[in-house]
Amino acid sequence: MKTKIHTLSLGLAAMLATPVVTPLSADEIIHDGEFQFLRQQYGEKWDKEDKEIDQQLAAIREKNGGKRPNILYILIDDVSFGQMGDPKMNYVMGIKTPSINKFSDESLNLMRMYTEPSCTPTRAAFLTGRHPVRSGIKEVKVALVGEGLPANEVTIAEVLKSAGYNTAHVGKWHQGDIEQAYPHNQGFDYAAFPLHQQVQLTVMTPESAKAGNQFGYNRSLQNGAFELDKKFRPFGLVTGVEAKAGGKAVEVDLKPGEEWTHAHYVKMNERYQRQILEQVDALAAKDEPFFLQYWPLYPLNFVFDENPESLNGGFHAEKLQLLDGWIGELLEQLEKTGEADNTIVVFMADNGLMYHYEGPSGLSQLIYRGGKTNHLEGGVRVDAFVRWPGAVKPKSYAGDIVHVSDLFTTFARVAQATEHIPTDRVIDGIDQTALLLKGEHHGRRDYVYIYENELLRSIVKQEYKMHMPAPGVPGAAAPVFNIFRDPREEHAQIGTALWSGASFQDMAKRHALTIAKYPHNKLGKGKPYEGIQNLRPESKETVETFMSWHPKKK
Amino acid sequence: MKTKIHTLSLGLAAMLATPVVTPLSADEIIHDGEFQFLRQQYGEKWDKEDKEIDQQLAAIREKNGGKRPNILYILIDDVSFGQMGDPKMNYVMGIKTPSINKFSDESLNLMRMYTEPSCTPTRAAFLTGRHPVRSGIKEVKVALVGEGLPANEVTIAEVLKSAGYNTAHVGKWHQGDIEQAYPHNQGFDYAAFPLHQQVQLTVMTPESAKAGNQFGYNRSLQNGAFELDKKFRPFGLVTGVEAKAGGKAVEVDLKPGEEWTHAHYVKMNERYQRQILEQVDALAAKDEPFFLQYWPLYPLNFVFDENPESLNGGFHAEKLQLLDGWIGELLEQLEKTGEADNTIVVFMADNGLMYHYEGPSGLSQLIYRGGKTNHLEGGVRVDAFVRWPGAVKPKSYAGDIVHVSDLFTTFARVAQATEHIPTDRVIDGIDQTALLLKGEHHGRRDYVYIYENELLRSIVKQEYKMHMPAPGVPGAAAPVFNIFRDPREEHAQIGTALWSGASFQDMAKRHALTIAKYPHNKLGKGKPYEGIQNLRPESKETVETFMSWHPKKK
Repeated sequence: MKTKIHTLSLGLAAMLATPVVTPLSADEIIHDGEFQFLRQQYGEKWDKEDKEIDQQLAAIREKNGGKRPNILYILIDDVSFGQMGDPKMNYVMGIKTPSINKFSDESLNLMRMYTEPSCTPTRAAFLTGRHPVRSGIKEVKVALVGEGLPANEVTIAEVLKSAGYNTAHVGKWHQGDIEQAYPHNQGFDYAAFPLHQQVQLTVMTPESAKAGNQFGYNRSLQNGAFELDKKFRPFGLVTGVEAKAGGKAVEVDLKPGEEWTHAHYVKMNERYQRQILEQVDALAAKDEPFFLQYWPLYPLNFVFDENPESLNGGFHAEKLQLLDGWIGELLEQLEKTGEADNTIVVFMADNGLMYHYEGPSGLSQLIYRGGKTNHLEGGVRVDAFVRWPGAVKPKSYAGDIVHVSDLFTTFARVAQATEHIPTDRVIDGIDQTALLLKGEHHGRRDYVYIYENELLRSIVKQEYKMHMPAPGVPGAAAPVFNIFRDPREEHAQIGTALWSGASFQDMAKRHALTIAKYPHNKLGKGKPYEGIQNLRPESKETVETFMSWHPKKK
Repeated sequence: MKTKIHTLSLGLAAMLATPVVTPLSADEIIHDGEFQFLRQQYGEKWDKEDKEIDQQLAAIREKNGGKRPNILYILIDDVSFGQMGDPKMNYVMGIKTPSINKFSDESLNLMRMYTEPSCTPTRAAFLTGRHPVRSGIKEVKVALVGEGLPANEVTIAEVLKSAGYNTAHVGKWHQGDIEQAYPHNQGFDYAAFPLHQQVQLTVMTPESAKAGNQFGYNRSLQNGAFELDKKFRPFGLVTGVEAKAGGKAVEVDLKPGEEWTHAHYVKMNERYQRQILEQVDALAAKDEPFFLQYWPLYPLNFVFDENPESLNGGFHAEKLQLLDGWIGELLEQLEKTGEADNTIVVFMADNGLMYHYEGPSGLSQLIYRGGKTNHLEGGVRVDAFVRWPGAVKPKSYAGDIVHVSDLFTTFARVAQATEHIPTDRVIDGIDQTALLLKGEHHGRRDYVYIYENELLRSIVKQEYKMHMPAPGVPGAAAPVFNIFRDPREEHAQIGTALWSGASFQDMAKRHALTIAKYPHNKLGKGKPYEGIQNLRPESKETVETFMSWHPKKK
């Protein structure tokens, strides 16, 4: 890779970029009970290891002119484990993802990356380093909600910005429709994002209705002779907006009265791809390190492409193949700026496939059972790759368990920003820097709690996974699976619950006691669409209608 | 790779090893109707390509001192697609197969290799180049059957032997218990094999009963107070035998009166591994090229290993990992002989997993649905790798459809032995030499017929798979799947059968008309265990009991 030449600015950049920090020790961050339980067993070893890691991080910075690493976080929607980065799985699916496969070869492959089972929760977990239940976040509906990521949550963007990083977000956001939840109010200097998600943007289109993939939203295929309520269908929703930190958002996609169509969706996707390339250039040109998010809307798409590029041709599979080219283009752009050598790129999916469309979508459950919305492995296991030239071993694999929230704490550590992690609340994210730098078997968790919204549905410990018993039912009655022997969770292990039921119940208790000590935050509430300066008349009407029945009118 | 030095014997060896042959043209081999249908579309192109291939084959021989390539065919039992050769899938399963992964990297990976759904049929298809239904072969039961591969079937070993190859077989055979069916009577100069299969050898052991994996066979766990028939349980079966072509077989495992135990099974597996290494040495030392088969009994095994090497620890998964090391050892031995550069090594599984033991076995359906005995992709899709240094491109992939019977015709072609392929019967195996030498998109079939015993259960054409309608039911009513979009065959495609039903029915018709013209052979029949010179008293009794009720007593 090309190395950017830091000429005159080198000394200054180094000074600017490397504040003198007193990093938080692992003890100062408030972790969940289960991690404390592990720390009791491994604390001394980890403290020692952490000293070596600090030296390693310092050496990496030194090699890069004193600059801390940039971070590019690419998160794509609804792609199950095994669907990217593996040429053999490409053959199974009839798609080609050469760019992602190449990226996998350049990366540490996290073979047990767990997410939350849906878009909003996974993104919230990453942003806050906390299980979304702690910030009140659930799956966000399409249509107005007057809810979102609360202002008092501290996002990774805020943590990194406080430590001197430039920050930007491009693409899906999906953290709510209230002003405090917008990315430019949650730590991003710049943000280009749609206010809602792809159900609005690609499923509720006339083309999707005509393609037979979404019935009922678009009136063109229905008569509705007995319809009274004209507001049952979501209407007048804001589409794509752009904004700078502290400023107002501007809607950029639709003119007043214009109908949203598939062509708009295609254009929006292409625009985000263009904007991410622009952001790479803009951020790389600055002296400070950057934190950049690209959260594409593709592969979600509900209209078949004519003359498909892929053998599969399903409406999601085809866009996954397209996206592969786009990811390649983005990585090339990063390369051109000369910053690739000093940039951690994490690429992953946010949860399993949208199994509701299995068949025509061209994506399938493939290896694990389940998909989006499920606590099954198919819902929460994703392909995840970490490239960090000179620091992370290329073409390596780690079987250690990682949860998406771990990226929060790990990014903070490598950016020397841990002092900005809040210490008044539980941080679920474990610092996994040791895993990145020292490789497999240096992970610091062997467990994960899996929620569906506010329900704890499964606990994973090592190779075991308990599907939680209903309240009051003893642990010994709950099914326990060995996910190596039975990745599809179809054959509960004979007798395993008889001993592990107690251990799993203990884990649930440690988790519950931690919640009792540090109660959950409340979901942010407010009037939808505040802070958008060019709201269309139909959007204003939508807000008025919404507020008209709202119990706490503002 | 080391190259063996042919010194004085070079000229003679070359003369001996390269007979002047008039190869059969593709027109002279009688193929199934469907291939004729394709040949009508591509014949001219393929004929032209075949001339180039002849030149390529000649050049390869020239590079190897005029010697035709050796062939080592490794076939393992009951391992589903995706379970070998892919480091990422290793992580899913919690096993390590580094030797096979390395071998995959050195090979052409056949990504759509279809087998028959069970051991005996797949092996018969390979041996004869014909769907087993044509030779009367079905799944062979454990216990005496007095049946087997008929003498008048021409095996690949006979074809290659006729063309001057030395031939040997080590491991599972499973083609019946009658003398004409034994490998040393079907073209192999030397054979070491168990008379039956692993249900006898590893499931029906006292240890398997005590491990809870096979109830009812071993009396130790049952009272049987009302038992009259003492012969309901298979008894007195012959175990492992060894023989030379034309000679008698000698049982080598058990003394009269001795009970078969898990320890015997372990010993038998270890012996076959030792013997395959000996055979490699012995055959490599000769001037003529060799055809060597290694058909291990592992990974089938029904007792848990203590202190497992694998993270999975299931009783099949653990042995698959063990076998990986053994395969590595075998390939190394081949390397040491100096013959590796002139040896085609094909490594594959014979059908999908034994799903009956899913869970404790540690192998799972993984990607495709179904397993052994099923016409579903999980029953008939396997990992398959072809290594041929200097001829086949390493780390390459082919999405073309291949059927296990194609190896028969292809091996004959590369060995200049096509003149020995019989021309009085249908050969289903397509010559896929073009695919080996020219790579992906040079395959010569886009279809496969899938039988369960004598029932045609599915037809695959390109990405479509029809589950055959019941007799008399129109094709338009049958479910048709797109196996890229829906690898688990769970969502029949809307409407596809309406047009493809007719095309699939035409395929079935072409297949049926070919059978009408060239009727099926009859399964070989005879008295079990003839040709074994040291039959134990209990085996003699078994044969007597069997013959006592046999309608055609001999």
